[in-house]
Amino acid sequence: MTVNFGSVVRVIGVLFIVLGICMMPSLAVAVIYKESTSAVSFAVTAVPCVLAGLLITKKLKPEKIKMKARDGYLFVTLAWLLASVIGGVPLVISGNIPNPADAFFEMCSGFSTTGSTILTDVEALSKSMLFWRSFTHWLGGMGIIVFAAALLPSIGVSGQMIASAETPGPTFDKLSAKYSDTAKSLYILYFGITMAQTVLLMFGGVTLYDSLVHTFGTVGTGGFSIYNDSIGHYNSAYVEWVITIFMLLCGINFNLYFRIPRGGLKSFFADEELRFYLLMVFGSVALITICLMTQGGYDNLSEGVRDSAFHVASVVTTTGYATMDYDTMWPTFAKMILLILTITGACSSSTGGGVKMVRVVVALKFAKRGFSRKLHPNRVADITLNGRGVEQTVVTNIINFILFYILIVLAGTFIVALNGFDLVTTLSAVLTCLGNVGPGFNLVGPVLNFSIFSNFSKVILGLIMIAGRLELFTFFILFSPKYWNSNRV
Amino acid sequence: MTVNFGSVVRVIGVLFIVLGICMMPSLAVAVIYKESTSAVSFAVTAVPCVLAGLLITKKLKPEKIKMKARDGYLFVTLAWLLASVIGGVPLVISGNIPNPADAFFEMCSGFSTTGSTILTDVEALSKSMLFWRSFTHWLGGMGIIVFAAALLPSIGVSGQMIASAETPGPTFDKLSAKYSDTAKSLYILYFGITMAQTVLLMFGGVTLYDSLVHTFGTVGTGGFSIYNDSIGHYNSAYVEWVITIFMLLCGINFNLYFRIPRGGLKSFFADEELRFYLLMVFGSVALITICLMTQGGYDNLSEGVRDSAFHVASVVTTTGYATMDYDTMWPTFAKMILLILTITGACSSSTGGGVKMVRVVVALKFAKRGFSRKLHPNRVADITLNGRGVEQTVVTNIINFILFYILIVLAGTFIVALNGFDLVTTLSAVLTCLGNVGPGFNLVGPVLNFSIFSNFSKVILGLIMIAGRLELFTFFILFSPKYWNSNRV
Repeated sequence: MTVNFGSVVRVIGVLFIVLGICMMPSLAVAVIYKESTSAVSFAVTAVPCVLAGLLITKKLKPEKIKMKARDGYLFVTLAWLLASVIGGVPLVISGNIPNPADAFFEMCSGFSTTGSTILTDVEALSKSMLFWRSFTHWLGGMGIIVFAAALLPSIGVSGQMIASAETPGPTFDKLSAKYSDTAKSLYILYFGITMAQTVLLMFGGVTLYDSLVHTFGTVGTGGFSIYNDSIGHYNSAYVEWVITIFMLLCGINFNLYFRIPRGGLKSFFADEELRFYLLMVFGSVALITICLMTQGGYDNLSEGVRDSAFHVASVVTTTGYATMDYDTMWPTFAKMILLILTITGACSSSTGGGVKMVRVVVALKFAKRGFSRKLHPNRVADITLNGRGVEQTVVTNIINFILFYILIVLAGTFIVALNGFDLVTTLSAVLTCLGNVGPGFNLVGPVLNFSIFSNFSKVILGLIMIAGRLELFTFFILFSPKYWNSNRV
Repeated sequence: MTVNFGSVVRVIGVLFIVLGICMMPSLAVAVIYKESTSAVSFAVTAVPCVLAGLLITKKLKPEKIKMKARDGYLFVTLAWLLASVIGGVPLVISGNIPNPADAFFEMCSGFSTTGSTILTDVEALSKSMLFWRSFTHWLGGMGIIVFAAALLPSIGVSGQMIASAETPGPTFDKLSAKYSDTAKSLYILYFGITMAQTVLLMFGGVTLYDSLVHTFGTVGTGGFSIYNDSIGHYNSAYVEWVITIFMLLCGINFNLYFRIPRGGLKSFFADEELRFYLLMVFGSVALITICLMTQGGYDNLSEGVRDSAFHVASVVTTTGYATMDYDTMWPTFAKMILLILTITGACSSSTGGGVKMVRVVVALKFAKRGFSRKLHPNRVADITLNGRGVEQTVVTNIINFILFYILIVLAGTFIVALNGFDLVTTLSAVLTCLGNVGPGFNLVGPVLNFSIFSNFSKVILGLIMIAGRLELFTFFILFSPKYWNSNRV
């Protein structure tokens, strides 16, 4: 078995078409706000992109293409890379982000829903470019893949294979027999959440444009803002609480929402990963609030809860919005909690990144079992999740993932260390990019940015974001010689 | 099966006797240097200690005591805790370290061969107290346990059980059928290495007292010095290289040395853990040297190699000596390597701490296998070590250990974070204590100390050192309710 390049190229063609079409809303924004340079930049990128896509899909015969998991890895990785490259073209040619390495970083950050930026002054960009930048979060959040999945079956490609490569998290409930139906359900839910948040923000006096842009960043758990002081710009408890709640909602496994109409809230909360996620969220908010009131100089409890809830939600869902500079203003204990949440991330099959709560749960159960084993070597119980035993292979895969996650953090930190910044900056930059969070600590803290790094490091960090978004294996397997070796069966 | 308190108490009695006797050399040093307060302090601690031990061992009938693994965990943990408490008594009553929390920290650091100190001015202590402080490294290095093992069989306790709880590392070659013979062989080797290094240091013009003290710190891979600028005090390339080589020798599995007379150097170097250890050492020295020459402002290659080799050896073997302040003078890249080595530690069954190289090797192979599994789910090869397949249980135990190690680092960091110091200080303090290294970074860097922490944190860090020295499980299993539950079989 070897890689089926024909089918991969053909699906890439579809991606080109979708990507070109996705630039249309931003082009419209440019027209509305009379930003002619930006409008032209979108047009000269989108039109050739769609044309190239049409050419590719037409040239390759629409015969039944069988896409195996092996092809899925290549396609998915290429899709995110190409989207980040092509998505950056309007930014570069319009002069909004003239340096291609910067544009690549920014688009990797967008499509991977990370939200780290190299911009020192976000507000200097044109409104349509800021719209595009945030829109990539929305596209990336649910996956360009799910977005395109509605088209794929029509050209004879089974989407299931792609889904198994792309789906964030180890489990993926089969909502319906046909993958395209699943994609459609998720897509409608995604759209609904987007609408709801936009409307709620507008109730709070936020303009339509601002509401849309920040909703894209929330629902995709991305975190790009259009203001230098992020959500702190509004200085509104209402806006902050709306965003806090929607960030938390988007950190939950989307499949679980479909349980509510059938099984009610009881069935929803029955999920073990969800319960652990909520425990982590409420536990972190409580601990940080206590820390802020006792050590952090806060004297107003509601303000403490508000700041603590917002940033816990922002980090655990890997969104990355901020309302104040917690890096310099919070005690180390509170920041330690944020650092842990940067690593754990949100639930599987949500739009969030990181290791994912379900993996953390399994790893904790695995570690706990180690103790029982020491005392009773012959009585080793299975690890259970939602009341059922977890297959040994799944446990092994999860532990593997965590070990590999650590290795990538170390490797990335070595490369980024060449910039010569301090350890906290270096390590937190890699952790925040790999976990798709956004801000780190010290020189990459919530009110600072990634402009300090060399072009080489920016590209590496961009690739780390994509690797993180694609759950490591899908990305790194392409570096394995075995993957390309056609002689192996 | 429940814990056999009778046998545990009886062995503790033996420990008391040994501990009292072990204070005699320090008492002799006090007499030689006419330090009367110190001499009295040692006497009034050692004499009651030995008497109490004699009383306990005499009171409990010398019937055949069966010591199970379960009892071994309790005894070993108690042994290290009691040694740290009793060992600190002379320091407190002599006024050299008046604060009991400080003395406990210092003795935990000594017996666990960590080498972290709370002393801001080491040179202010009396010579005999400094001797005792370093002597605890030597005792701890090979384990008070092995030291006492020669006595244990005579009172009918099987030492094998204790060894399985204490032995650092997952494997322990059976050198001889009888455990006491093994202990004796190791003891003789340990003594030989100590002699050799002492003599070699004296050839370099170091006094007998200084040579002994620094040999204790090297052979036990502890790292206490008697000078504020540690080994930098001598400013001698010869001294530094002698210590570098002996640190590296003591980071190797001691059992391997017994292969040389039988199988030659080929059999010695055949060990996979050793080869990985050497790869890490030489790789790190090479990378740091290049980094220092290009980024670190070094212009003399031999000086670069010397500084790099010394500190790589010091950290990887978890000794912790320093010849200069690498924390402020070295680039982040070089410090990143030291941070990794702080975690990996040395070889199993050496006097070094940390995760241990063999576990790192197995974890890397485990992670690598994860890739093959993705491409070929049905062809999963065994993980091999030294050409033989590693049992699944052993692999699981190793991965368990690593996960648990991470959890302890996180838990410890949370507690120490309450002191309010920065993340690097907090995290590196916990890592360096758990790995029994000594120095960390920032406020606990190589030329600084742990005096900044609260008494509570000092006690916690002391316990973390012991937990690290006892390979986590032996220590933490005592916190499991199942351990104390006599109804469980």
